Amino acid sequence: MSRHWPYPTNCLNTNLDRERVVVLGSGWAGYTLARDLDPKKYQVVVVSPRSYFVFTPLLASTSTGTLEFRTALEPVRSRRTKVEFFQGWADSVDFVTKTLRVEEAVENPWQAMALTADGREDQNANQLEQEKGAEPKKGKMFEMNYDKLVVAVGCYSQTFGTPGVKENAYFLKDVGDARKIRNRMLSCFETASLPTTSEEMKRQLLRFAVVGGGPTGIEFSAELHDLIAEDMAKIYPDLMQYYKISVYDVAEKVLSMFDDKLARYAIERFTREGIDVKTSHHVKSLRRGSPKKLQEADGDQVVKDDTSCYTLELQEEGEVGVGMVVWSTGLMMNPFISKSLAKPYTIPISSAAVETPSDAKSWNISTHPRSGGIMTNDRLRVIMQPSDQAKVGGKVNGRAIINDVYALGDCAIMENSAYPATAQVANQKARWLAKQLNRDTIDSNAFTYKDLGVMAYVGNWNAIMQSSGGDVSGRVAWLIWRGAYLAKSVSWRNRILIPTYWFVNWLFGRDISRF
Amino acid sequence: MSRHWPYPTNCLNTNLDRERVVVLGSGWAGYTLARDLDPKKYQVVVVSPRSYFVFTPLLASTSTGTLEFRTALEPVRSRRTKVEFFQGWADSVDFVTKTLRVEEAVENPWQAMALTADGREDQNANQLEQEKGAEPKKGKMFEMNYDKLVVAVGCYSQTFGTPGVKENAYFLKDVGDARKIRNRMLSCFETASLPTTSEEMKRQLLRFAVVGGGPTGIEFSAELHDLIAEDMAKIYPDLMQYYKISVYDVAEKVLSMFDDKLARYAIERFTREGIDVKTSHHVKSLRRGSPKKLQEADGDQVVKDDTSCYTLELQEEGEVGVGMVVWSTGLMMNPFISKSLAKPYTIPISSAAVETPSDAKSWNISTHPRSGGIMTNDRLRVIMQPSDQAKVGGKVNGRAIINDVYALGDCAIMENSAYPATAQVANQKARWLAKQLNRDTIDSNAFTYKDLGVMAYVGNWNAIMQSSGGDVSGRVAWLIWRGAYLAKSVSWRNRILIPTYWFVNWLFGRDISRF
Repeated sequence: MSRHWPYPTNCLNTNLDRERVVVLGSGWAGYTLARDLDPKKYQVVVVSPRSYFVFTPLLASTSTGTLEFRTALEPVRSRRTKVEFFQGWADSVDFVTKTLRVEEAVENPWQAMALTADGREDQNANQLEQEKGAEPKKGKMFEMNYDKLVVAVGCYSQTFGTPGVKENAYFLKDVGDARKIRNRMLSCFETASLPTTSEEMKRQLLRFAVVGGGPTGIEFSAELHDLIAEDMAKIYPDLMQYYKISVYDVAEKVLSMFDDKLARYAIERFTREGIDVKTSHHVKSLRRGSPKKLQEADGDQVVKDDTSCYTLELQEEGEVGVGMVVWSTGLMMNPFISKSLAKPYTIPISSAAVETPSDAKSWNISTHPRSGGIMTNDRLRVIMQPSDQAKVGGKVNGRAIINDVYALGDCAIMENSAYPATAQVANQKARWLAKQLNRDTIDSNAFTYKDLGVMAYVGNWNAIMQSSGGDVSGRVAWLIWRGAYLAKSVSWRNRILIPTYWFVNWLFGRDISRF
Repeated sequence: MSRHWPYPTNCLNTNLDRERVVVLGSGWAGYTLARDLDPKKYQVVVVSPRSYFVFTPLLASTSTGTLEFRTALEPVRSRRTKVEFFQGWADSVDFVTKTLRVEEAVENPWQAMALTADGREDQNANQLEQEKGAEPKKGKMFEMNYDKLVVAVGCYSQTFGTPGVKENAYFLKDVGDARKIRNRMLSCFETASLPTTSEEMKRQLLRFAVVGGGPTGIEFSAELHDLIAEDMAKIYPDLMQYYKISVYDVAEKVLSMFDDKLARYAIERFTREGIDVKTSHHVKSLRRGSPKKLQEADGDQVVKDDTSCYTLELQEEGEVGVGMVVWSTGLMMNPFISKSLAKPYTIPISSAAVETPSDAKSWNISTHPRSGGIMTNDRLRVIMQPSDQAKVGGKVNGRAIINDVYALGDCAIMENSAYPATAQVANQKARWLAKQLNRDTIDSNAFTYKDLGVMAYVGNWNAIMQSSGGDVSGRVAWLIWRGAYLAKSVSWRNRILIPTYWFVNWLFGRDISRF
């Protein structure tokens, strides 16, 4: 059933004297832009399968209980903004009629979960049933017009087709992932403390592997180590001899975005805390159950194929029994870009300004040859090119700009730029675009990124920080780290709750209730 | 696989100079007793399928977001107590050898959920899969000796065999239930705000039915009304015309434990707030989907069999389309009592003191003829009677006391008493028993219950309170209500967090993020 919008709906007051800006996505780019646009000037409508924004830098803290999950969330609907919201997947867009097809997704079973494939089609059904007990079912469709469209749908998690990772790894992209990680880690300890659990199985359950040596993987490892060293040590003293945290990365070094000095500092800290950092390591597969050698082994240490742990297979180490694998590496282009937006057009169309003419009949949006991201110009407007060249990128014969369609965030790449796919870039693009649209100054300005530096928490109240102001590491960097994220968090509600949890957990320890 | 305990397990330091007290259950009775027992005198071991204690009076607040879920929880394992813990179901007990068989339940899929039937056997598998995507699988077994056994396993939720209730109703017994209710209520509003949702479906989705007019049902209705009136009204202003809260009870009056005056005050408040209280109403069934009459109806208002809502069938009103039914009535005896403890014994056995001799060969624990609860004497010790009379209760020919087995909480009934199955009674019994065991004074004392009164929140910052000190209602009672529960909450962590959330939510409104 498809209904055209405006269709009698009471949650939306269509205001005809305003342009309607439809924002696809509620992440760093979409959520920020929607909040910054002037509601007097624009009717802002966010369409996203997720009803909230996640303050990603604090996810690792919530996954270990340093913070409560909700302190990293901001609902899109707020009594303090005029932003309108529909929970749904953008299904397709027509640049000619300027209409959008939306699939409603209120009961979206993947809500709060990292997506590793097109949720509505390829997502592993078993995994989904394990997690949510839900059947992949298509939601109702409805259509919607836009005056301006902003594509900020973000990326999925990349598993590089490694067998078993999609089904068995734990990701750290959304709050539901953080919740799964926290529950899993706690149940590993609880299971290890049972009299029915053998020594060898204790060792496996309490071996935690983190794949990916970027800031997320490093910060999660650091937070996990803090939790174990500060709290689990008091609650399960006799299990401390068994636990182990290992960080694996295919690259030769971790934290590659930091200077060698800071990266080395981080690794030294990890070594001192007993966290292994294994670079140039390759994951071959991940499956449920114990390593074969242990199943075959004799004696009391034998571990029958027990599904209570996982087996991580590494090219360099062979099979390793682990309690949990946290996968924090790689981005996969959102299928919405490659599938839904791939539709060819015949130019001229009203909304597209041809910059370099071409006699080509069929045109497509231009995508990045490697990442597959949408190419935009320095106004963040989507570029079109003749279909046969759309994937070439750079200067080609035939080029048009869709003036009322913008793309930003991890799914978009600005031409002639090498900005990383980070929250900082997404956030700056969103603030810049909102400002230009509010002031109608976009035609006289071009976006430029101002690198404010990078930070990472490395555990035991230490952090590293690199910026134009110079490098800082240790306790001071940690204080700046906390201060910065506290200042950056969106709502006053969270500005009150976050330090309260920091204080309460420092005083009494983190909560280990599992539900 | 069954292993005898002590078996090499590192989370337990068996201390042979202390008696081992095994406590079954982590609710008001079990958790309180375990904390109060002197660790220098006893080795306290809690066995429960749930790793935390739930402060039940605050559950309704957490289900509506007035408080964060964790503020109603206390983990059984704490760095501040010496209580040892195994997450498992007590499977069977042998009073002669004083051993206990435990089925480990760390991955217990029903963790945090109200049980409506024997979780490990009769629990509806579909429901379980819907909720947890888990297969009912039997956990490993291990055995354990006890010197003293305390049975405090509590009760299940009673659905009186009403068709569809077990599968489709929302309960409010554990924190997982509260979480489900909160997510469901929020998604009802989100779905109602979609352009694809018809007027009639909005009305159904936003009709919330509460079955059971006891304090829990009334407090939940009040909290739900507060949430809608204070927050949803600002976030979904155009949906306010559709919502409706109705409380159903089979009895002629609600809040029967209160004086008529206070009960009337509560009902007047509800009427003023637009909450229907429908007494003498009988639920016939509950199913997924819309009422038939609407599926058959014509025109734009037709609602095809849409699984997004439920149909509640009442003897008095016929089919009513609702967004959610919260079932807060009735207790069902824990199957552990009726099944696992039903094993017959041949007395004399060492641990049982015969008070009234009998030539009966087979003896059983004495259970209450109506509720099926374990009968105890005024020392909370379990009573045995000849099997053919075990269910008769009261004075019979043949009676013995098992000196080292105690029963308290909702699963136990003290003979010649009419104490209600409330947290207050369970809590007082636990405190009393801990005191007697710590001082070895149990043989010279008998338990008596001191009624401290009853309280209930009735919405809009008003409560009712009835105690020996007299009746109070309105704002003052509300202040006492909050003060009392704040004072009663177990940990300082929650004593800090609870008022923080009261304050933050009063200031900024409740959080509506759904995950």
